[in-house]
Amino acid sequence: MENEELCSAQLIGDMLDEKRFVEVRSIVVDFNPADIAALFDDLSETHTLMLFRLLPKELAAETFAELEGDTQERLIRSFSDNELREVIDEMYLDDTVDLIEEMPASVVKRILRNTDSETRAVINELLHYPEDSAGSIMTIEYVDLKAGMTVDDAFTRIRRTGVDKETIYTCYVTGNDRKLLGTVSVKSLLLSPTDCLISDIMETNVISVRTNDDKEFVAHQFEKYDFLAMPVVDNESRLVGIVTVDDALDVLQDENTEDIEKMAAIMPSDKSYLRTGVFETWKNRIPWLLLLMVSATFTGQIITSFENSLASMVILTAYVPMIMDTCGNAGGQASVTIIRSLSLGDIQMRDIGRIMWKESRVSILCGVTLAAANFIKMLLIDRLLLGNTDVSVMVSLTVCLTLVSAVFFAKLIGCTLPIAAKRIGFDPAVMASPFITTIVDAIALVVYFNIATMLLGI
Amino acid sequence: MENEELCSAQLIGDMLDEKRFVEVRSIVVDFNPADIAALFDDLSETHTLMLFRLLPKELAAETFAELEGDTQERLIRSFSDNELREVIDEMYLDDTVDLIEEMPASVVKRILRNTDSETRAVINELLHYPEDSAGSIMTIEYVDLKAGMTVDDAFTRIRRTGVDKETIYTCYVTGNDRKLLGTVSVKSLLLSPTDCLISDIMETNVISVRTNDDKEFVAHQFEKYDFLAMPVVDNESRLVGIVTVDDALDVLQDENTEDIEKMAAIMPSDKSYLRTGVFETWKNRIPWLLLLMVSATFTGQIITSFENSLASMVILTAYVPMIMDTCGNAGGQASVTIIRSLSLGDIQMRDIGRIMWKESRVSILCGVTLAAANFIKMLLIDRLLLGNTDVSVMVSLTVCLTLVSAVFFAKLIGCTLPIAAKRIGFDPAVMASPFITTIVDAIALVVYFNIATMLLGI
Repeated sequence: MENEELCSAQLIGDMLDEKRFVEVRSIVVDFNPADIAALFDDLSETHTLMLFRLLPKELAAETFAELEGDTQERLIRSFSDNELREVIDEMYLDDTVDLIEEMPASVVKRILRNTDSETRAVINELLHYPEDSAGSIMTIEYVDLKAGMTVDDAFTRIRRTGVDKETIYTCYVTGNDRKLLGTVSVKSLLLSPTDCLISDIMETNVISVRTNDDKEFVAHQFEKYDFLAMPVVDNESRLVGIVTVDDALDVLQDENTEDIEKMAAIMPSDKSYLRTGVFETWKNRIPWLLLLMVSATFTGQIITSFENSLASMVILTAYVPMIMDTCGNAGGQASVTIIRSLSLGDIQMRDIGRIMWKESRVSILCGVTLAAANFIKMLLIDRLLLGNTDVSVMVSLTVCLTLVSAVFFAKLIGCTLPIAAKRIGFDPAVMASPFITTIVDAIALVVYFNIATMLLGI
Repeated sequence: MENEELCSAQLIGDMLDEKRFVEVRSIVVDFNPADIAALFDDLSETHTLMLFRLLPKELAAETFAELEGDTQERLIRSFSDNELREVIDEMYLDDTVDLIEEMPASVVKRILRNTDSETRAVINELLHYPEDSAGSIMTIEYVDLKAGMTVDDAFTRIRRTGVDKETIYTCYVTGNDRKLLGTVSVKSLLLSPTDCLISDIMETNVISVRTNDDKEFVAHQFEKYDFLAMPVVDNESRLVGIVTVDDALDVLQDENTEDIEKMAAIMPSDKSYLRTGVFETWKNRIPWLLLLMVSATFTGQIITSFENSLASMVILTAYVPMIMDTCGNAGGQASVTIIRSLSLGDIQMRDIGRIMWKESRVSILCGVTLAAANFIKMLLIDRLLLGNTDVSVMVSLTVCLTLVSAVFFAKLIGCTLPIAAKRIGFDPAVMASPFITTIVDAIALVVYFNIATMLLGI
């Protein structure tokens, strides 16, 4: 697939240079817009514009909506006002709003200047919804029906207005006050007699979201209910737009990326990796690195305070990395499981008791397994095989007891911190491995040195 | 929402006890199947069966398909053969296959005994596709049309067969040999004259997947092309089924969960957190913990080999946790970014040069920032404020130079290992923080002790 794309980008570039425009047009006209957009990535700037101008109007607009922000911006800057108007006219309103949100002010001005006043008013309205709200991802291009229509009337309306709608498969029945009364699918329209009233076949138990609902909540509703589209209503239950499943899918993927980034102590970014500059990547990564570095120095303080004991038994230092890493991993496992389950809605805050009870049992199983493996390893490999006589049974016992208790604390902290974060309104995802590791390291060392003091009398 | 659900589970349980069946039925009959399924989770076992028996046949089957495996199993065990047959008859075939894959052998036998021989044959065929393939998630319930039909014929066919199809909105045009010739959407059917031929309006440049394609690949195609359904063909390009967007969405979410689990060094599990037993959770977590613990002991060996130098300058030990954590975090950031970008298709293996060049520059920016912050902190806080005279300028310099070089290595290793893993056919997700941390820790310590030997002459 990849090679095909590359090959055709090369080929199409050559054909454009040779002015074989009709041929190029006949090739790409059958492509899916997403594939043409991918092709644009591999074409030179001049070729991009040439190819774009060859596309039929509708396909051009569909392709444009699929492009990355920087390519869109470059194209707009090369467009005549006429071309720009044509593209904007053909695009769905939610895509236009997405475009406007990404473009710099000068480009936005030009876009708005080239839309008719009615569209401009709608765009401005859509732009007013908070960034992460249902309102910001909805489109107003839906089919609305009236309860008194017959199935036949409905089809007439769909045929007349459907061509510009983002989906026609779910139609929305509204009253005179624009209140959402019900939905009717084209499937039930098709399977009902033509003289049947919409009010008789519409689904009145409508699941809808509000304009201010978080877009991630909306996406999860799609996951739960398997809808193709979902109505968005305002505070007076008036229908103002719909969200389609393709946009919900994008929201879900963005949310997953954001969660994964946060779990790895990175500030989320909108752009893809190769499109993010070096400086920007640095800016997204350095705050957490600095914060975690400062926190980790507390762990250093703990070592400093046991400096004298350590000097008398340096062998203890050899196991510090293993204890730190193992406990960090154990805590990270628990925290990531809980963060993901919270995000999927598999667990609720009220489950905290059950979760802690489960994690304590898991942690003891894990701790004992690790300690046993480690005890054997220390005595067989470190002492017998490598002949390190400093590794006594008591030292091994110290390390193993530390593992059991520190893994226990690690898992408990790992499972409670994300829930605590959610409780106080933070994103649980920041309580993932890096943060947990820093806390767990400190605790593991305190446990280690205390057990050492008790057992080895240092 | 949550409270509502809880409240209604309680309420409905009480109503069932009071035998107010008609009332209960009239309440839940308007619920969405996903909501009834959620209700079942909060009902007692007897109430579950009582409520299930009150549901109309179709709603019962839809609800059944939404239930968790253990609830499904419990219900089947209480069903009469007749009830079981009714549920299976109403369910979509892909849901039946999912059910069979999850149930123990005895239940599977009963299910198969209660399906007619034709359905049984199809189920057996579907069960033969590899677990993660497109074939395993497809359904065979689609609308097929012939190229010679008119729009009117098509509607007649949809009306006659559509009620049992998982989607009717994309229809598939096949030749006599079942070869897929094109697709036509109900939207274009509705917007075309009724005497128009299907061959004139069908989309012939069809994007399809093969039965053996990985289901995650299929899901990503949905993300790319915004389809509602996607045709699945066999090796001879014959249409054998379709995958619908709701299933693609589930695959995508499962994949994300699996990636996140792997990144946290957990073996992926199919079940949700609270439904996984303690022993099973332990089994999913302990292999990586053990493996990483063993790897971390190499880090211990490095410390052991510098034992004498350390004994002469114990202050160096105080900065070991901070150096290990910081480099682990820096490497983890790079690896997770690369893993996610690979999974989203934002980067390809051929981009490795660009990636390494970018990461080296980012790592130097990060390293220098961290070193500068650390230098100031060590001299101002550790030395002046806390009065630790062991923290000399040379010691600070040692720690800071270590940070710059080790962060550099950490980021380079973090970005190359996931790509290398993919190259040799492993899942890049296993090369996330825990694994990277273990490697990076060892490298960071070697760098630290070598710089210390050079600068401090220990």
